[in-house]
Amino acid sequence: MVFRTHLSSDISKSLAGSEVVVAGWVHSKRDLGGKKFLVLRDKDGYIQVVISKSDPEELVRKFYELTLESVVSVKGIVKIDERAPGGVEITPKELIIHSIASTPLPIDVSGKVKADLDTRLRERVLDLRREETKAIFKIVSTALRSIREELYSNGFIEVMTPKIIASATEGGAALFPVIYFGREAFLAQSPQLYKELLASAFERVFEIAPAWRAEESDTPYHLAEFISVDIEMAFANYETVMEVLEKVIYRVVRNVSEECSKELKILNHELPQVRLPFKRFKYVDVIETLRKVGSDVTKGADITSSDLRRFSKEVGEELYFITEWPSETRPFYTKPCDNNPEYTESFDFIYNFLEIASGSSRIHRKELLISRLREKGLNPENFTYFLKWFDYGIPPHAGWGMGLNRLALMLTGRSNVREVTLFPRDKKRLEP
Amino acid sequence: MVFRTHLSSDISKSLAGSEVVVAGWVHSKRDLGGKKFLVLRDKDGYIQVVISKSDPEELVRKFYELTLESVVSVKGIVKIDERAPGGVEITPKELIIHSIASTPLPIDVSGKVKADLDTRLRERVLDLRREETKAIFKIVSTALRSIREELYSNGFIEVMTPKIIASATEGGAALFPVIYFGREAFLAQSPQLYKELLASAFERVFEIAPAWRAEESDTPYHLAEFISVDIEMAFANYETVMEVLEKVIYRVVRNVSEECSKELKILNHELPQVRLPFKRFKYVDVIETLRKVGSDVTKGADITSSDLRRFSKEVGEELYFITEWPSETRPFYTKPCDNNPEYTESFDFIYNFLEIASGSSRIHRKELLISRLREKGLNPENFTYFLKWFDYGIPPHAGWGMGLNRLALMLTGRSNVREVTLFPRDKKRLEP
Repeated sequence: MVFRTHLSSDISKSLAGSEVVVAGWVHSKRDLGGKKFLVLRDKDGYIQVVISKSDPEELVRKFYELTLESVVSVKGIVKIDERAPGGVEITPKELIIHSIASTPLPIDVSGKVKADLDTRLRERVLDLRREETKAIFKIVSTALRSIREELYSNGFIEVMTPKIIASATEGGAALFPVIYFGREAFLAQSPQLYKELLASAFERVFEIAPAWRAEESDTPYHLAEFISVDIEMAFANYETVMEVLEKVIYRVVRNVSEECSKELKILNHELPQVRLPFKRFKYVDVIETLRKVGSDVTKGADITSSDLRRFSKEVGEELYFITEWPSETRPFYTKPCDNNPEYTESFDFIYNFLEIASGSSRIHRKELLISRLREKGLNPENFTYFLKWFDYGIPPHAGWGMGLNRLALMLTGRSNVREVTLFPRDKKRLEP
Repeated sequence: MVFRTHLSSDISKSLAGSEVVVAGWVHSKRDLGGKKFLVLRDKDGYIQVVISKSDPEELVRKFYELTLESVVSVKGIVKIDERAPGGVEITPKELIIHSIASTPLPIDVSGKVKADLDTRLRERVLDLRREETKAIFKIVSTALRSIREELYSNGFIEVMTPKIIASATEGGAALFPVIYFGREAFLAQSPQLYKELLASAFERVFEIAPAWRAEESDTPYHLAEFISVDIEMAFANYETVMEVLEKVIYRVVRNVSEECSKELKILNHELPQVRLPFKRFKYVDVIETLRKVGSDVTKGADITSSDLRRFSKEVGEELYFITEWPSETRPFYTKPCDNNPEYTESFDFIYNFLEIASGSSRIHRKELLISRLREKGLNPENFTYFLKWFDYGIPPHAGWGMGLNRLALMLTGRSNVREVTLFPRDKKRLEP
């Protein structure tokens, strides 16, 4: 017997009377004596199998043997029954047990009994079979596809930069050391410097790949391993790439809204309204507004989440840019504003209070890069492999990086990046 | 002045008389006295700028200042001239120099002077501006898009599995240790065990992500860091996933052939003919054929590249499968054949002599997994995080992994995976 001829989503009334093989996990079991109901779950949904008194004894014996989450294939005839979910059910002829699940299950897959996030992450493989969790990752997959579609159609090519690097690149974040054939190397915290170099060959590049930061702190928005969506574009400045970001967000939200309406309903989440262009607020104006409403934020400092929350409410914007950040708050490669080098050609893209993406025009002149490195307390000699190329024709360029898991929070309405990451890695979690 | 209004590919005769801004790298310079020719290169191609005696002195001065690979924007008028490449050129009004390149360049970007691979990889950023190298990565990007398109349309969702893992998973290959918040962890050699677990939740998953193997040997086909294309599918066996692979290869070759004809011509490469289904040869029959033609290969052993080359010639197949490999040659999770457990439900997909992909039906019963681990000399206790889930309903499943860089060799006709990897990592190479 084949494993399966039809998915649950293929079984419709038009198949009434046909023989099919369905397969899946035992999602629920009900024994009404004369009739025994088995609901199977597969990737697309559910299908009911009804065993009657008159069916062969072997089927009845197997029904009793089956536990929740056991895996079976069932050959049978499609029958219309308005009481069944979807109006159709299967009258079985043969049932093959692929796997019997132990009892009790560590978490309830049907979702009736709630478990806390720690338990869910420990029992992640079962948790991923829950309807809500599956909905989240369907949406993430749709988002990934949409991001790439939009970038391809804007002439970007996909690149893959090295993840093991010789030196701690950007300064700031703590890196994970790797023992590389007996010498010390590091896991890349971002593809920043590589994507800048690639923009000098291909002009428009993007990458969607893991990146690592040894985050000591335990927040709902940081992980030790995360997926970074990165673009870099030659002959562009921060305004150009903000427009690319707007198009990407627009396409993602439109596609998720069109293709994942079932999943959004399961998650009880409403996507934010996307009207382009998103409002741009200059950093200095944000600070002014915040001080007016009582914040003690000072010019030159970063803006805390609670201040962003306050600002978002004050201006009534859910999705917005904050632009021209002070030099102190941005990495060395960020281009200063021509007319006022205390500020930079930079932006954050914010969802309510959460930074989803961050970008800038980059410095393309070597002397300025070197002096900015020094100002940041970094040693230009550690950046030779990067600086070298600025002798050989680096164009003006700009780009951004976006945390996929933060975008996923926006798309799913969840509140912790661990929920939208299959197997999150943080200080406490290295398994499963 | 804006950086650019038009790409070289946008400049056609219909724009004659219009003012445009083009931008790019100085690809060549010719000074004929009365006329000075500047060929700019951008992401799409080339455009000629002609400076005449009557032009402002500043333009002439800048022409002399420019070196090859310097970066400029040129504002000017489009003019039809049949002698120019593409039949159009630019009469400049204004020229902005963004960056002056040092001389001499470490390699010749125009490609006239050949450099060896070591030099090219050391000077990679310049090498990536060469027409052939750019063509390679355009093809790789097209291949990536095509792989995903085909998998999406077969109901697969894209997943991202963790790259830092607690224990050396599959045995065999040497792993890179990572210092993870003070404890020892490893870089994943493949998403194998995670994708199997995910198939028990999502049924059809794929991932395209980096993987690492501490390869000591220096061969043209191995890297320490490579991109692995992985699928896993529930309620499927090796034959099912071979068909998925066939569809993926078909789509990739079709798209590359349609969208990258210019690049293929630059590389002087002809794609292999794809006629589905690819021929399947059983391992035992391959051995028999090889022994008949004089090889001393023995049953039970792996097949060397030179034997594969011989076999490919003997049967006249460029793309083919070798199936049902002996248990000794395959990893512990490979499902033995039901009727003959010395052999497995497995396959390699081969291009001439090169293994491009490898896959199998997987074992979905815990007892068998444990006994196979023991037979392979591995300790089942180190696999608890994986084995645990086999108590909770793992379906029959199958999958494959494909090396993107090996696929790229097939698509580009190059002979070393370093050529088709932007910044390759091997025992000697950690920079650039």
